[in-house]
Amino acid sequence: MKAPLPIAVFASGRGSNLQSILDATDDPAFPATVELVISDQADARALERARLSGVNAIHIAPGEKRARLSEEADTRLLHILAEKKVRLVALAGFMRILSGRFLREFFGQVINIHPSLLPSFPGLDAQDQAVRHGVRWSGCTVHFVDEGVDTGPIILQAAVPVKSDDTAVTLAARILPEEHRIYPEAIRLISTGEVTLVNGRLSWRQERGESL
Amino acid sequence: MKAPLPIAVFASGRGSNLQSILDATDDPAFPATVELVISDQADARALERARLSGVNAIHIAPGEKRARLSEEADTRLLHILAEKKVRLVALAGFMRILSGRFLREFFGQVINIHPSLLPSFPGLDAQDQAVRHGVRWSGCTVHFVDEGVDTGPIILQAAVPVKSDDTAVTLAARILPEEHRIYPEAIRLISTGEVTLVNGRLSWRQERGESL
Repeated sequence: MKAPLPIAVFASGRGSNLQSILDATDDPAFPATVELVISDQADARALERARLSGVNAIHIAPGEKRARLSEEADTRLLHILAEKKVRLVALAGFMRILSGRFLREFFGQVINIHPSLLPSFPGLDAQDQAVRHGVRWSGCTVHFVDEGVDTGPIILQAAVPVKSDDTAVTLAARILPEEHRIYPEAIRLISTGEVTLVNGRLSWRQERGESL
Repeated sequence: MKAPLPIAVFASGRGSNLQSILDATDDPAFPATVELVISDQADARALERARLSGVNAIHIAPGEKRARLSEEADTRLLHILAEKKVRLVALAGFMRILSGRFLREFFGQVINIHPSLLPSFPGLDAQDQAVRHGVRWSGCTVHFVDEGVDTGPIILQAAVPVKSDDTAVTLAARILPEEHRIYPEAIRLISTGEVTLVNGRLSWRQERGESL
């Protein structure tokens, strides 16, 4: 059996998507392993979850900027990831925009999950955007991260119905289990090489014939 | 039983969505009836389908403009619809943009079907846009028409998976049966008053609890 792919998860909040990844990678047959969990928030529940799973949990002081990491934090992050030989970064509710430098160094190796059927409703409060727009279907999307906001190549999506009496909260609750299902699955597909990025577009090793 | 709602269908092409509406309204219990079919193309298969169903089929010469009807054609259209007491206009592959005057006269009484999960992929070649973007789910949307392109309030949507080897043609073939299912259903919902427009937003007479 090949050695599992070392991955890092970046999280700012409660870390429910992190938990689904930890649960999946707990299986020794899973082709990836969580090498470390990184948060810009010292008190993030995500760091606690990592520790409970025996995974390195590192707080990176983000610096002064509101939406980005400072250059120092960025440098430190790249250093840690290199040291641990991390090959894939999974963003799981990480509330900082990654620098151009970071994305160039990890080109095609950073993925994110977003609670809408992209390209609809990128950015903040996607479930609220969906309810306000009045769509009848929404869902979630795992995608490679590029320098845009939720614009990178799509790996997997799941669709859920929107009910006429939904609020952002009830819709989010319906989408979340689908996030927990497709995020580990996307990590599996990348780790086994079933899906790769070729010239900025997704390539499947074999035609799958159906979506997940 | 209430008298069925008199509707008009506007079509430019082969009229497969028209056919699904004709089939539905063929049932005497259906709460709407197709009063007339209008096309800007004299040789549209849609007009032939209408005649085969014993429905008035009218060709409106569109005039010189490419994407719109001439003012004369617009006036003639409004006259015919008034004469037949048409209460709802269903666009089914009608390739002309309706005038502001038309939409004001028929405010909240014009619906359209679009082969994507709006707000993703408005405009032409929606299935091709979806395949090129690499989404894993697409579908179709019935919506009220406003002065934007495919921007009006959403009535119903259906979601279909996109396969990794799909082309615009194979995806369109998977979406089409869903169009044929939800378009008559949307007409039924409007005709019975189960769904109405209130201040430009959709209102359901009773909370449905699930989407179709």
